[in-house]
Amino acid sequence: MNIHDTAIVSEHAKIGKNVTIGAFSIINDNVVLGNDCVVGAYCELGVENSQTNGHPLVLGNSALIRSHSVLYANSRIGKNLQTGHRVTIREQSEIGDNFQLGTLGDIQGHCKIGNFVKCHSNVHIGHHSKVGNYVWIFPYVVLTNDPHPPSDVLLGVTLNDYSVVATMSVILPGVTIHSDTLIGAGSIVGKDVEKGRVYAGNPAKDICAITKIKLKDGSNEIAYPWRKHFHRGYPSDIVEKWIEEFKV
Amino acid sequence: MNIHDTAIVSEHAKIGKNVTIGAFSIINDNVVLGNDCVVGAYCELGVENSQTNGHPLVLGNSALIRSHSVLYANSRIGKNLQTGHRVTIREQSEIGDNFQLGTLGDIQGHCKIGNFVKCHSNVHIGHHSKVGNYVWIFPYVVLTNDPHPPSDVLLGVTLNDYSVVATMSVILPGVTIHSDTLIGAGSIVGKDVEKGRVYAGNPAKDICAITKIKLKDGSNEIAYPWRKHFHRGYPSDIVEKWIEEFKV
Amino acid sequence: MNIHDTAIVSEHAKIGKNVTIGAFSIINDNVVLGNDCVVGAYCELGVENSQTNGHPLVLGNSALIRSHSVLYANSRIGKNLQTGHRVTIREQSEIGDNFQLGTLGDIQGHCKIGNFVKCHSNVHIGHHSKVGNYVWIFPYVVLTNDPHPPSDVLLGVTLNDYSVVATMSVILPGVTIHSDTLIGAGSIVGKDVEKGRVYAGNPAKDICAITKIKLKDGSNEIAYPWRKHFHRGYPSDIVEKWIEEFKV
Repeated sequence: MNIHDTAIVSEHAKIGKNVTIGAFSIINDNVVLGNDCVVGAYCELGVENSQTNGHPLVLGNSALIRSHSVLYANSRIGKNLQTGHRVTIREQSEIGDNFQLGTLGDIQGHCKIGNFVKCHSNVHIGHHSKVGNYVWIFPYVVLTNDPHPPSDVLLGVTLNDYSVVATMSVILPGVTIHSDTLIGAGSIVGKDVEKGRVYAGNPAKDICAITKIKLKDGSNEIAYPWRKHFHRGYPSDIVEKWIEEFKV
Repeated sequence: MNIHDTAIVSEHAKIGKNVTIGAFSIINDNVVLGNDCVVGAYCELGVENSQTNGHPLVLGNSALIRSHSVLYANSRIGKNLQTGHRVTIREQSEIGDNFQLGTLGDIQGHCKIGNFVKCHSNVHIGHHSKVGNYVWIFPYVVLTNDPHPPSDVLLGVTLNDYSVVATMSVILPGVTIHSDTLIGAGSIVGKDVEKGRVYAGNPAKDICAITKIKLKDGSNEIAYPWRKHFHRGYPSDIVEKWIEEFKV
Repeated sequence: MNIHDTAIVSEHAKIGKNVTIGAFSIINDNVVLGNDCVVGAYCELGVENSQTNGHPLVLGNSALIRSHSVLYANSRIGKNLQTGHRVTIREQSEIGDNFQLGTLGDIQGHCKIGNFVKCHSNVHIGHHSKVGNYVWIFPYVVLTNDPHPPSDVLLGVTLNDYSVVATMSVILPGVTIHSDTLIGAGSIVGKDVEKGRVYAGNPAKDICAITKIKLKDGSNEIAYPWRKHFHRGYPSDIVEKWIEEFKV
């Protein structure tokens, strides 16, 4: 155990083995931390509000939460969470293993996120979003939910497996981005995006098949589906399946 | 009074009754807090700079300021302020009652904001902005002010009553958004928007009357003006007036 | 010296004369601070990771770092740094003198930034960016680097001297913005921008020469190159050269 003298850790919190808690951090009552977790400075975990209903924040093993982050009670996150600085994860978020959330990320809660989802800096995921597995979300992307704001109608966005949303794109309420897709930077996406397609623009339009995009590394190989060539950070059993999938 | 042991509260600050100050928060000299205010952890209130001129930060009753927020001296904010985490409100902001400012909101100061204005996450309000009453501003919206940056010319944006600016829109310097309007997501608005119109696109263009948009709740009712159907969070006397206004 | 009682300052850090460290701030081992630096509350300086390699964070004289900021080890920043609140500057950033980085700014590291660069709030500078001197970057601008994300190909953006990137623009990977240019608000820039041109739109197109834009101050003078008329905050020897340059 490595809990900084200045940290405030509730005696009711359940803390795993070999956990590090940084200076000035606060671990409230309703927190369950797995083994080998590291929490940076100035973080508050287990914040309660009218929708946390006494349920805990549960984090799997080996979470790394960087400084100034805030995680609410009543959410469950799998193992190997990694966050940047100053992230917010609100209540009623169900998040799988190996989630990465970059600096300033803002998960509004009441959402489902699968395994191996990677969000870069300053991503905003609205209520009722459903994000599959192996999804990539780049900086300043917003997943919305209100089709005629302000209203009581909430239509969450769905991002399916292996979809990629590039920088500064907005996915409009109720839209489904199917698997193996690429949304170009700066897109405003108001229609469903079919499997294997590239959409871009404001409003976003169907540009081409993802297989039309070539790698700019001199190889002239196709760039998508990205799991054909990009394997950094994934476990070897998954990478082997991907390699098998694309064998000629 | 409920001031955390680790909080640093100036003896010169004027603190109302039944106020809560969270762990590691700092309340500087020039702060006047109303009754029943709650300040989360890691907040600093009453920051001074060359433009605060010895004037206080004055907050009305029942403010709720979430963690990691920074509010400067020389601003006045009415009752029932609610902020998300990590907001900044700079000096010379004049803000009415029932203001809501979501996580990461950045009020640059030298601005006027009316009553019942609601800003979602990550909104940026530039100097010299004028925001009326009952205005809604959604995530990643920026109100600008410099027509040819960098320069010494500051032309603030005006948002009139009941206007709605959807996600990731930019309002360009000097533009007036008249009342009962909707700016679609991802719009770059360079011209004034007449009362009762929907504008969208980059550059934003006049799309239709707001009354052309129907609610997606199966009712086939019109979605705008939104006060016709959306009443959550408003006091009953105001809601009754709105209901009266739209009686056939 | 003015180090707050609650600050945690490593005995291994090298701190110049007349330095102020705010409440609850953390100065780690690998920090070298020049004279007359001011660090606000809740900052952490000298954060280490797998890419800091034992090298220090070196800050020149007279830095002003506002609250809740995080600066990593293994970066060098010249004199007169000024930051807003909650900035992040990651490892392997080489930054010149008089850098200004507004609230929420996120410098990803592995980048080069010249002298007198001014970034407004919420700017994101990706790995491998090269920013010249006297560059202006406005709110919510993102400099990207991956031409087909996710991939191992990194093509940084280049912004040359006196270029201006307005609010909510994205500069796509590998693009060079030449000197004396203006990128309009909300632009998605996928092609190089030639010296002296205005680009705007999604996708950004060549609009006109910068000299076509007039000041909106009633003078009818041209607004660009901006150094012709805008001198606030620059030292007099530089301003004199600029005045000389534009003498008729």
